[in-house]
Amino acid sequence: MLNKLQIDFLQNNINLYNKLTSKEKEIFTSKAIPIKVDNNKNLYFSSENCKGFIVVFNGTLRAYLDSYQGKEITLFKLTKGESCILSASCMFKNITFDISIDTLESSEIILLPTNYLEQLSKTNLNVKEELLMLTQKRFSEVMSVMESVIFSTLDNRLITYLKSFNKSTIKITHEKIANDLGTAREVVSRMLKTFENEGLIKLSRGNITIINLDKK
Amino acid sequence: MLNKLQIDFLQNNINLYNKLTSKEKEIFTSKAIPIKVDNNKNLYFSSENCKGFIVVFNGTLRAYLDSYQGKEITLFKLTKGESCILSASCMFKNITFDISIDTLESSEIILLPTNYLEQLSKTNLNVKEELLMLTQKRFSEVMSVMESVIFSTLDNRLITYLKSFNKSTIKITHEKIANDLGTAREVVSRMLKTFENEGLIKLSRGNITIINLDKK
Repeated sequence: MLNKLQIDFLQNNINLYNKLTSKEKEIFTSKAIPIKVDNNKNLYFSSENCKGFIVVFNGTLRAYLDSYQGKEITLFKLTKGESCILSASCMFKNITFDISIDTLESSEIILLPTNYLEQLSKTNLNVKEELLMLTQKRFSEVMSVMESVIFSTLDNRLITYLKSFNKSTIKITHEKIANDLGTAREVVSRMLKTFENEGLIKLSRGNITIINLDKK
Repeated sequence: MLNKLQIDFLQNNINLYNKLTSKEKEIFTSKAIPIKVDNNKNLYFSSENCKGFIVVFNGTLRAYLDSYQGKEITLFKLTKGESCILSASCMFKNITFDISIDTLESSEIILLPTNYLEQLSKTNLNVKEELLMLTQKRFSEVMSVMESVIFSTLDNRLITYLKSFNKSTIKITHEKIANDLGTAREVVSRMLKTFENEGLIKLSRGNITIINLDKK
């Protein structure tokens, strides 16, 4: 059950919600669950634990692929006002992959359990159109990651990654960077050390200080 | 304009076609174009050249990502009875990537130009559902390639790749293998040479003879 603030938020940000009839909106707002999640928590959104449609009300989430060996690669991030249907993947027989979702800061999500999303998509074909749009959006993001992994050298990807923080000092572990980029920690540490020797960055305990990334 | 054989083929193989009303089927069959394509031809299905919905009537196509530097990676193959909507990507604003499609043998395709697919999806919401299913199918295939690229070592991927031919002698260039796997020709040549030294395969001009891939 959502409060007025949350309902207004859906109305202002979520296309799928706006495609619903008044009666369907009532189903959504009475069945959706607001959830607070601490920083760095896993939301376990695999097909065995297919929770539903999530909307980020506050905070930032990270969707990623992980392997049994503990290797990861970040696929996309979800910020305030964004939604994800891959966390309801069990309702789609053609989605055969599992993603994981973590919080990157303490976050609040609105979760519509899968069975209600399924019900709404059956009674309202406009919801299907929105599901198509959302699927294609994530598909495009994943293809962009794929292009970068296949066609860009790791040092270029690491430069782009460091720039994306838009900060002079980045507080991050080498393992976290490796997981975002889908490579090993040792490779990241070695490459950062090279960047330091080239005068691009300065490394200190848990921090990377940017000096001049455009030198590369 | 399709002939009776082609129309029967659509009826027996293509879900999207079967979701159309009789009148819409008439639009499809009168506007679709049967095209014969020689082996190893590019169909130029990027967003600037967004041809439409393709159905493989005969033969095999390969969908892949390519870079300006000429590097490639195979995303999925399309065999008889399969269809692809990514070749109509310009009708979807959320698809921001371009794929290329080649023939892997001389093939016959049925092409429904994008504007007619768009028209059908506007008048028949069941078509939207089918577009969602098809998008999710390709999304899953791409995720599977991604998992393999990120989490599997290249030698394991090469073994799996060679096994997938299910032949004792494979006639293929090292460059073709490199393009399928998204790596450089030199890397493939070096790895095949190692496999030969390990007694897994035997190399000869243009051929790879399988001895025992399970030794690895």
